Amino acid sequence: MGIIFKHASGRASSLLARIRFLRMVEYDITSLKIVVHSDSEELQLGVDESYTLMVSKKNEQSIVGAATIEANTVYGALRGLETFSQLCAFDYLTKSVQIYKAPWYIQDKPRFGYRGLLIDTSRHFLPIDVIKQIIESMSFAKLNVLHWHIVDEQSFPFETPTYPNLWKGAYSRWERYTVEDASEIVRFAKMRGINVMAEVDVPGHAESWGTGYPDLWPSLSCREPLDVTKNFTFDVISGILADMRKIFPFELFHLGGDEVNTDCWKNTTHVKEWLQGRNFTTKDAYKYFVLRAQQIAISKNWTPVNWEETFSSFGKDLDPRTVIQNWLVSDICQKAVAKGFRCIFSNQGYWYLDHLDVPWDKVYNTEPLNGIEDPSLQKLVIGGEVCMWGETADTSVVLQTIWPRAAAAAERMWSTREAVSKGNITLTALPRLHYFRCLLNNRGVPAAPVDNFYARRPPSGPGSCYAQ
Amino acid sequence: MGIIFKHASGRASSLLARIRFLRMVEYDITSLKIVVHSDSEELQLGVDESYTLMVSKKNEQSIVGAATIEANTVYGALRGLETFSQLCAFDYLTKSVQIYKAPWYIQDKPRFGYRGLLIDTSRHFLPIDVIKQIIESMSFAKLNVLHWHIVDEQSFPFETPTYPNLWKGAYSRWERYTVEDASEIVRFAKMRGINVMAEVDVPGHAESWGTGYPDLWPSLSCREPLDVTKNFTFDVISGILADMRKIFPFELFHLGGDEVNTDCWKNTTHVKEWLQGRNFTTKDAYKYFVLRAQQIAISKNWTPVNWEETFSSFGKDLDPRTVIQNWLVSDICQKAVAKGFRCIFSNQGYWYLDHLDVPWDKVYNTEPLNGIEDPSLQKLVIGGEVCMWGETADTSVVLQTIWPRAAAAAERMWSTREAVSKGNITLTALPRLHYFRCLLNNRGVPAAPVDNFYARRPPSGPGSCYAQ
Repeated sequence: MGIIFKHASGRASSLLARIRFLRMVEYDITSLKIVVHSDSEELQLGVDESYTLMVSKKNEQSIVGAATIEANTVYGALRGLETFSQLCAFDYLTKSVQIYKAPWYIQDKPRFGYRGLLIDTSRHFLPIDVIKQIIESMSFAKLNVLHWHIVDEQSFPFETPTYPNLWKGAYSRWERYTVEDASEIVRFAKMRGINVMAEVDVPGHAESWGTGYPDLWPSLSCREPLDVTKNFTFDVISGILADMRKIFPFELFHLGGDEVNTDCWKNTTHVKEWLQGRNFTTKDAYKYFVLRAQQIAISKNWTPVNWEETFSSFGKDLDPRTVIQNWLVSDICQKAVAKGFRCIFSNQGYWYLDHLDVPWDKVYNTEPLNGIEDPSLQKLVIGGEVCMWGETADTSVVLQTIWPRAAAAAERMWSTREAVSKGNITLTALPRLHYFRCLLNNRGVPAAPVDNFYARRPPSGPGSCYAQ
Repeated sequence: MGIIFKHASGRASSLLARIRFLRMVEYDITSLKIVVHSDSEELQLGVDESYTLMVSKKNEQSIVGAATIEANTVYGALRGLETFSQLCAFDYLTKSVQIYKAPWYIQDKPRFGYRGLLIDTSRHFLPIDVIKQIIESMSFAKLNVLHWHIVDEQSFPFETPTYPNLWKGAYSRWERYTVEDASEIVRFAKMRGINVMAEVDVPGHAESWGTGYPDLWPSLSCREPLDVTKNFTFDVISGILADMRKIFPFELFHLGGDEVNTDCWKNTTHVKEWLQGRNFTTKDAYKYFVLRAQQIAISKNWTPVNWEETFSSFGKDLDPRTVIQNWLVSDICQKAVAKGFRCIFSNQGYWYLDHLDVPWDKVYNTEPLNGIEDPSLQKLVIGGEVCMWGETADTSVVLQTIWPRAAAAAERMWSTREAVSKGNITLTALPRLHYFRCLLNNRGVPAAPVDNFYARRPPSGPGSCYAQ
């Protein structure tokens, strides 16, 4: 209601506007009927997001009865409501909300069950209000997974009651998330049909852990990867995951596993001796670490997700339930599904939003199923994800770096492959993206101009939102 | 409440958090007493914004009774509430809201009654939600006038019922403000103790008017300044002002008058003849236009504000009630107050926020009373204003171009001249500005890093908000 009837809100004008609204008949919508068949509110991977939206037209001037949304789940109904809100437009001449081009009969469902956006709260802390702004904006593009890369080498902002010194690795005593904050994020996201997938990236990308527990560092000069030799390391991982399990109900949990540089393990005496004692190469130790972490996640009833290096390095040893997340190599999903693994597509050359030189059309034209023709293998690609790494994206610029480009990927992941692959996208998709950018702006989201070659650049001069 | 108790809000955690909150005693605040002496809610220039804030300390661990805010008006109480909210901080270890460094006894009032921010909705349309975000953020820095430069040569987004074709000059049929939208902005601002000063800039900067009424253009090749020869021109101005008078209760109304290039008047036959008939130079005609517009504003019980060129060009003929707004010449306020005019300081070299190369310290060190030593003349400087011109500041970047630099000017305008002029500001003001930038971020405002030489640049690498 707040989104659709923006212009009729506000104390000063509401009564007048509402009366005018009720008097108008041209395409005016006075009621919306929503039918949901299931009363389950469980939100998991593959939840039914399909919906049917009907708006009947009587003649040029009016619609018949109510608009109707029918869905199997509340989450399908939410997607239908989002579509409905985007068909409604305030007409400035009649000052009424009208439905664009009625009648409508829309049967809709997503192509992929996993349509993600990664945020990184370690390189820069993102306040709760900002994470909520991001989640809210995701719902406008029907994205449905917030991949929360919570901690990394730079900072550990997260409260872990079992190991309460860990968040001493936060940038400051104010740049932190409590357990209650995280629960509130999960609740806020669920209300919008969005799952939150937490990530604890091990054994690399973990230097900040040692601020609270220096024993996790192999030595003062070797602060990551985490010390593979100590049970304490895995006790801490187990403690973190036990604490997080109470917060994050989503079945997927991300264990990272990327960019593990094991050089300094070799140069640390007690690690070196441990490796020799087990007759391990450092690669063996990397595998040992990842697999042991996987078992911890699995013991907590989580399905592990790992970055693609784990698959490239020792794919045959990974738990078969593992979901592989691509970032580096173009055809890794192709290879992973061929081995029976599920895969998430996030190729850095196209879907890493911190790559500011990737324009909207390159984002749009990237197909997660590229090179995968067998329908049974295609099903193993659960979806894709755009990644907003935080090195140069803090609160001041994060939303305009995400939008509008994330919307290009969102359309590809939602719509059929045929629909997004035909025609001249400058004539088909671009006007939609311009329109959607302005829609985000109207909803208070600072989406950047579509046309600028570099992402998040300001407009170069005066002009309409619809043309920049 | 929403600002102070952010971490205790949210359905999932609220009960738990609230119980914990009530149990805690260390500096916890459980009640706040507010005493307002006047029941008038009128918000005009010079409204009493003073307040007293008291928080007593019993011992190291607790405060005595309630905190108290006492003020003569609700607007003073609002300023006190803002200060109070900034003394409160969530303590992540005890998970309670604590008052920083109690006890406090604060007697506070602003140095200037006019502390403005200009927004420009002609070069880029700013949606209602975005204008509200700007207003909300202004209240955090105790700014109290939103100078709404509504229309200009590029677009005319404003509804004028008396001349309904004017907003045909909008960029598009969606980039418009209805009368109700504008009233909602005024209401929203008033709730935060902020007046809205509308601007209708004449006779230059008005090309967009002619899209709806081409008669306002001297000719198709001379589209501004407005046609000085026709009564219709002044009828339209009168109509716009009559419509706006119902929306904007603030006593000041801005008539522009800047950058009037009269060259094409001379080249337009009927204008040239009109000038000759009256024995007018183009400068005489410019004066004639401005003075006639002033009389229209005055007839509607408005005090006219004009940009400084009107004073430089024909200051002795201006209505003595005119408020002169500086932008171009450093000592224009000095000259204007010497002639008995009131003045608003907005020197472009320091307080134009679209000048991205002006760093925070240059903004901070600029003193509106510079060169004005006589206390009776100082009183004529009613305040200052930072100006966010919109050529390259649309929804995607407007807030991070305003903040944090606007806060540097806000502190100068609020605090005593002595307080902001002593010591090494890198040690005094800069830490406050860093803190305030993070406070804005925490409240969901995308204020940019303080230290970057160019405004609104992203951070150059990972780091804490308090250090970038």
